[in-house]
Amino acid sequence: MSDKDLLKQNAESIERWGMFEVSLCGKTAGNPFTDYTIHGVFKHKNETVEADGFYDGDGVYKVRFMPSFEGEYTFEITGSFADFSDGPPSGSFTATPPGENNHGPVRVANTYHFAYEDNTPYFPIGTTCYGWTHQDDALCEETLKTLKNSSFNKIRFCIFPKHYIYNLHDPKTFPYEGKPCVCDSSVPTEDTSFWKGNDWDFSRPNPAHFQRIENYVAQLMEMGIECDIIVMHPYDRWGFKNMGTKADDLYWAYVVNRLSAYRNVWWSLANEYNLMPEKSPEDWERYGSIICRLDPYKHLCSVHNGGPEYDASKPWISHVSYQGDVVHTNGLREKYKKPVVLDEICYEGNIWPGWGNIDGQELVRRFWEAMCRGGYPGHGETYIQPTQFGERLWWSHGGKLLGESEKRIRFLLEIMAQTPGGGLRHREAWERIAVPESADHAGSYIIVYLDIRQPANYFFYFDNETAYRVEIIDTWDMTIEDAGVHKGKMHIKLPSKRYIAVRFIKASDK
Amino acid sequence: MSDKDLLKQNAESIERWGMFEVSLCGKTAGNPFTDYTIHGVFKHKNETVEADGFYDGDGVYKVRFMPSFEGEYTFEITGSFADFSDGPPSGSFTATPPGENNHGPVRVANTYHFAYEDNTPYFPIGTTCYGWTHQDDALCEETLKTLKNSSFNKIRFCIFPKHYIYNLHDPKTFPYEGKPCVCDSSVPTEDTSFWKGNDWDFSRPNPAHFQRIENYVAQLMEMGIECDIIVMHPYDRWGFKNMGTKADDLYWAYVVNRLSAYRNVWWSLANEYNLMPEKSPEDWERYGSIICRLDPYKHLCSVHNGGPEYDASKPWISHVSYQGDVVHTNGLREKYKKPVVLDEICYEGNIWPGWGNIDGQELVRRFWEAMCRGGYPGHGETYIQPTQFGERLWWSHGGKLLGESEKRIRFLLEIMAQTPGGGLRHREAWERIAVPESADHAGSYIIVYLDIRQPANYFFYFDNETAYRVEIIDTWDMTIEDAGVHKGKMHIKLPSKRYIAVRFIKASDK
Repeated sequence: MSDKDLLKQNAESIERWGMFEVSLCGKTAGNPFTDYTIHGVFKHKNETVEADGFYDGDGVYKVRFMPSFEGEYTFEITGSFADFSDGPPSGSFTATPPGENNHGPVRVANTYHFAYEDNTPYFPIGTTCYGWTHQDDALCEETLKTLKNSSFNKIRFCIFPKHYIYNLHDPKTFPYEGKPCVCDSSVPTEDTSFWKGNDWDFSRPNPAHFQRIENYVAQLMEMGIECDIIVMHPYDRWGFKNMGTKADDLYWAYVVNRLSAYRNVWWSLANEYNLMPEKSPEDWERYGSIICRLDPYKHLCSVHNGGPEYDASKPWISHVSYQGDVVHTNGLREKYKKPVVLDEICYEGNIWPGWGNIDGQELVRRFWEAMCRGGYPGHGETYIQPTQFGERLWWSHGGKLLGESEKRIRFLLEIMAQTPGGGLRHREAWERIAVPESADHAGSYIIVYLDIRQPANYFFYFDNETAYRVEIIDTWDMTIEDAGVHKGKMHIKLPSKRYIAVRFIKASDK
Repeated sequence: MSDKDLLKQNAESIERWGMFEVSLCGKTAGNPFTDYTIHGVFKHKNETVEADGFYDGDGVYKVRFMPSFEGEYTFEITGSFADFSDGPPSGSFTATPPGENNHGPVRVANTYHFAYEDNTPYFPIGTTCYGWTHQDDALCEETLKTLKNSSFNKIRFCIFPKHYIYNLHDPKTFPYEGKPCVCDSSVPTEDTSFWKGNDWDFSRPNPAHFQRIENYVAQLMEMGIECDIIVMHPYDRWGFKNMGTKADDLYWAYVVNRLSAYRNVWWSLANEYNLMPEKSPEDWERYGSIICRLDPYKHLCSVHNGGPEYDASKPWISHVSYQGDVVHTNGLREKYKKPVVLDEICYEGNIWPGWGNIDGQELVRRFWEAMCRGGYPGHGETYIQPTQFGERLWWSHGGKLLGESEKRIRFLLEIMAQTPGGGLRHREAWERIAVPESADHAGSYIIVYLDIRQPANYFFYFDNETAYRVEIIDTWDMTIEDAGVHKGKMHIKLPSKRYIAVRFIKASDK
């Protein structure tokens, strides 16, 4: 057959930062996942990008690419996956201007903050649904619907299925060919004898598992939601956390080659890396190096902790992904000079574990504190919802949101988005005072978050000259009251209740 | 005149631990406060106590004494205050059994806790009214009435008047003969030029000032309320914090000689000692030594901080009087091996300073946390109350209580009083778990305070054998619900709301 017949493109033209994909038929003898290579070179007048491809099952090999510029691209596919009589298969496509919701991948901006590649500021307000892609289709659809109607612009989830309390059932698909141990949900989480019935071929990923995840990544991309993809995690009865170096490296390459052309991908090397004694410090660094080598787009990348944080000073780590008390935000910013994303600050819910039973008011309080400290807090919900599939929790399975925090988080995000210069930093005081990170906006904008304190009056002084429009923000009732224009020694009357913030916005000159 | 005519007793018989007083006329030439001595020796078959007296004005000298035993006492008065032709004046009285509300002075018990001298456990739950005795009589009477109807069994207040925000008026009486600077309440607290108009004779205390305070100490004694008397403090425009060594020592002797015979007296050397740069470490130790020398009853004694705590390992300090976060309770207990009284953990109120604007729920939460950590929390209230005397705050002036915490504190105190063995200690966990300090009661009683967490279920395991009566305590709504008898792996259903505690009481054997 001719090379032209061999090759299929997913489109003749694609948006800048869209996902362009070339599919080609190739060899099936032996193990196509390990025995053959596939590689693409994508050329534009401004860039030449090399990307490895992957085997997608049924004799089909794929190479994916995300164009960073508008205009004409040509490409050539090489590798041992097929023998080419006419030379390497090649083709071209046009990268068109991005659509309305497409601002490119998210990048670090102004040291501690984020912006999309088109410079639109991005304020990450994420949620966590570890295993949502592993659930039945109907539940996944419900989760997507919930996310679409929510304020969240980021979601954390796992590629590997998760074995943990409230989530002991098998996933919809498995990441490898083979057979799982028989699930006995009465066996406690810690019992590793569980693993004994597993029979996997770690050299043969299951394309259906990854197609399923990709499908959701693509849908979230259309919805403007970033995917903080947790590539490894400790909660496992199937042996995926303990596959050995060779299988780990194959897995990392497979994941990165499949997913990095989606602009909304972030790499989270692990959830709670330090709870995986199977992994050495060198392992984590090696995984990081695989990402650096194979991800041409340099997606955001971090390692989430469940105890001492990972050393985020490593150059390949773009930001701190932190589990812990929001009070540490300032210290982490100072220590690493990188953005601090607080991916676990306890979840709104009422389950017994201490990480999952704060109420909506406390979660929203932590969000505001984190924001005022110049960090980016994350949501999760652990109310048990009875569903047709049994008891489900948003945190693990997705589904519906039952809590009270989400709409207040939307309100907060709207306020965050009004920050001049793209991000806040903290000014220490009894109250939480946040000011713009950018020196260009010094004195122009001040948020005072009074937390659980309930003063009847607030006194503030900036200077004798600058007039401020003052607003009283009820962060729980979601109201913004205009308290007039003040200057000099300002005296603001407050309603003597919890969760009030005061905002000072420099009044424009007349 | 004969010595018998010279001498008056306040009673022929007095309760054990009551205040016995001998008054004698004496010399008035020169300065009776400094030029003469007066001294008493009180004898019982079980004790001989020596006590210095003091000059009370108008030619009257007094010696006071607290009998620690029942039965017959004799006494003899000596000193240069008068010339005796018939030898030293003497007399006798009977110490009768204590009345119902009289359990003697409070002592440290079981290292970290307190008991009255008759071994009745005492759980200090105090409030703070720094300047209440310096107000007009009507307001003082209202404060006494409020205290009488409250649950507080301890109160912190100052001998010296206090000059601080919300409290800039002159006191009803001054502690010395002389004249104060003209009060200008518009001058800021920090402005020491204030002091310049003061004209005091620091060698001549004003008996009326001390009589006034004593009168209230005596009334509080009848009400069963301990007086944590703050002898020095930083908030001053009259120069009392800066009188010099000689005047300081005279003051300390005068205070101790006047007050130590009241069983309900505790010595607080200072409020916020570290905010008094006028005092050296040696000064505080010298004040401590004066107390040790002159207080025959060894009343409880501590130094309150407003920053780093005083070194409570000093042998003359009976307990830690701490201002700060209740989270430090455990550490302070371990460090000093003494009881920890948390005398300032922010006040319920709505004034602008951060130390005075938490709400009742938060204060009660801190009380419960402190209790579960094995410490003793203190109350204060900073809502502004309009009165006939102007704006008043309980924390400074007394008056009425407007807050929501006091009745919940009463509820807590009732629960504290049920602790087997007289005190709790902390067992670390996500939740606050408190158990009896006494090893004799190990496993008999467990309080789990869930704080702001709202689990729908609580799982607890002690052992397979012990049956517990389980109670669900709503610490805010003040209800105790019987959740039945459980043992082994206990599963307790909870109401999914904040401020719940679960109590496990060993069920009696059938």
